[in-house]
Amino acid sequence: MSGSGVWAGAFDLEYGHGRLDGESRTIKDELRRIGYLGAAKCRAKPVKAAFEAHIEQGPILENKNKQIGIVTGVQAMRWYDLIIRGVPCHAGTTPMEMRRDPFMALHRVIDKLYQIADDFRPLARITFGAIRAEPGSRNTVPEQLIMTVDMRHPERDQIGHMDRIMGETVMNECSKYRLTAEVKEEWNSPAVNFDDGCINAVRNAAERLGYSNMEMASGAGHDSVYVSRVAPTSMIFVPCEGGLSHNEEENASKEDLEAGCNVLLHAMLEMATA
Amino acid sequence: MSGSGVWAGAFDLEYGHGRLDGESRTIKDELRRIGYLGAAKCRAKPVKAAFEAHIEQGPILENKNKQIGIVTGVQAMRWYDLIIRGVPCHAGTTPMEMRRDPFMALHRVIDKLYQIADDFRPLARITFGAIRAEPGSRNTVPEQLIMTVDMRHPERDQIGHMDRIMGETVMNECSKYRLTAEVKEEWNSPAVNFDDGCINAVRNAAERLGYSNMEMASGAGHDSVYVSRVAPTSMIFVPCEGGLSHNEEENASKEDLEAGCNVLLHAMLEMATA
Repeated sequence: MSGSGVWAGAFDLEYGHGRLDGESRTIKDELRRIGYLGAAKCRAKPVKAAFEAHIEQGPILENKNKQIGIVTGVQAMRWYDLIIRGVPCHAGTTPMEMRRDPFMALHRVIDKLYQIADDFRPLARITFGAIRAEPGSRNTVPEQLIMTVDMRHPERDQIGHMDRIMGETVMNECSKYRLTAEVKEEWNSPAVNFDDGCINAVRNAAERLGYSNMEMASGAGHDSVYVSRVAPTSMIFVPCEGGLSHNEEENASKEDLEAGCNVLLHAMLEMATA
Repeated sequence: MSGSGVWAGAFDLEYGHGRLDGESRTIKDELRRIGYLGAAKCRAKPVKAAFEAHIEQGPILENKNKQIGIVTGVQAMRWYDLIIRGVPCHAGTTPMEMRRDPFMALHRVIDKLYQIADDFRPLARITFGAIRAEPGSRNTVPEQLIMTVDMRHPERDQIGHMDRIMGETVMNECSKYRLTAEVKEEWNSPAVNFDDGCINAVRNAAERLGYSNMEMASGAGHDSVYVSRVAPTSMIFVPCEGGLSHNEEENASKEDLEAGCNVLLHAMLEMATA
């Protein structure tokens, strides 16, 4: 989403160009290397309406047996790095009660953060995608643990509550074990409500073409989040098998993809001729 | 300990030469590269007695205010890779209750394994030194978690019990969340009892020289574990500051190191002239 973010003014060009991959290469250097670093300004021009067609990336349409998702907005998303710091020591020689071991707080923190997701069910989502221990030696209690946290909720107030509870929980649990902790926010994408006119155009197209449909919020982030800041926007979802996404097993049927394309076409025609 | 293991016949030469570092370079290739790959056979010759002087790598001597540890043996050590497998899915779109998320079992497994250390206190040790999630993306529930487990106890029966309880615990917790798990044993070093004659020589030297002393088992592995298979062996410990080891803050006083060297000398002289 960094390209659409720069285009829509959410990020400046320098920020977008400076993003790094896992080998610390910047987008700018890689654009230059492949001959795509153009001179044209990257900024939004007037757009009457914008639509983005996508697989749902979740299991809801498949479970409800609907072919088209009329996307009314995108849930709020926050990304964090959670860092728990202790004191490294030898695994064989240090009595358990003398340790300041980040894992001793980690398992309680994970437990309590899943509890937050449960307390804010059914719409809250909490995911731990990556984790590492440093120095990462088998026979040394780690000096620190770094774990990513992905937290989502469609309502701004609710994710604010979740954020505060998480911060308090992490600090409380870590202090019990004489550990220090830090919750670093890496990304904060507020909840987005799409444009009523565009949402209606998607609904009208699905109804006119006779496709089963339902309204839904997107659980994932999309370029439309940023595009919607500068143009009336909505999205069209189609089912994907087992809700699987970001996975090589990801699959959508030809029939559903065709339905999605037809809704996209008719929604665009409605807005173009309105 | 791979060098002493080959020398004492615990491993064959091919195994020792084949050990890899983090960049997949073998010991054999690196020995050749630096000109140290000799032709002499690497095997134990008759040795009358062997002593190894070492910092304790733990806090016990310092806490008890003793200068010399008379090491009677080494606790049993087992290293494992614990693997928990789930199904990767998108962090934003997959309802919590539909997930098969390895972290949901991980935090319960860690909790219960620390409970094992507590049930077998005060001598049991359980340490998680390294952990990683795959694929390791912020917004994807991991397909698998891989965590190292280091488990120690000075008594053979007790570590056997701990091993069995760990296996059952991991399988039980993972099945609750529709996850699969594997506990792979990576290393198994049985408890070692050092030679009575060598232990006595260390004690006699410490007493003769007037150093405060105590008997203890080593919590860490040492070359003496393998050397003791082919020669009468014991070890001499001195205190280290705060029990810290495997850490850049590791420190031992000149006075304690001198005391350790004097005990080493006198123990060797006693065995040499016995």
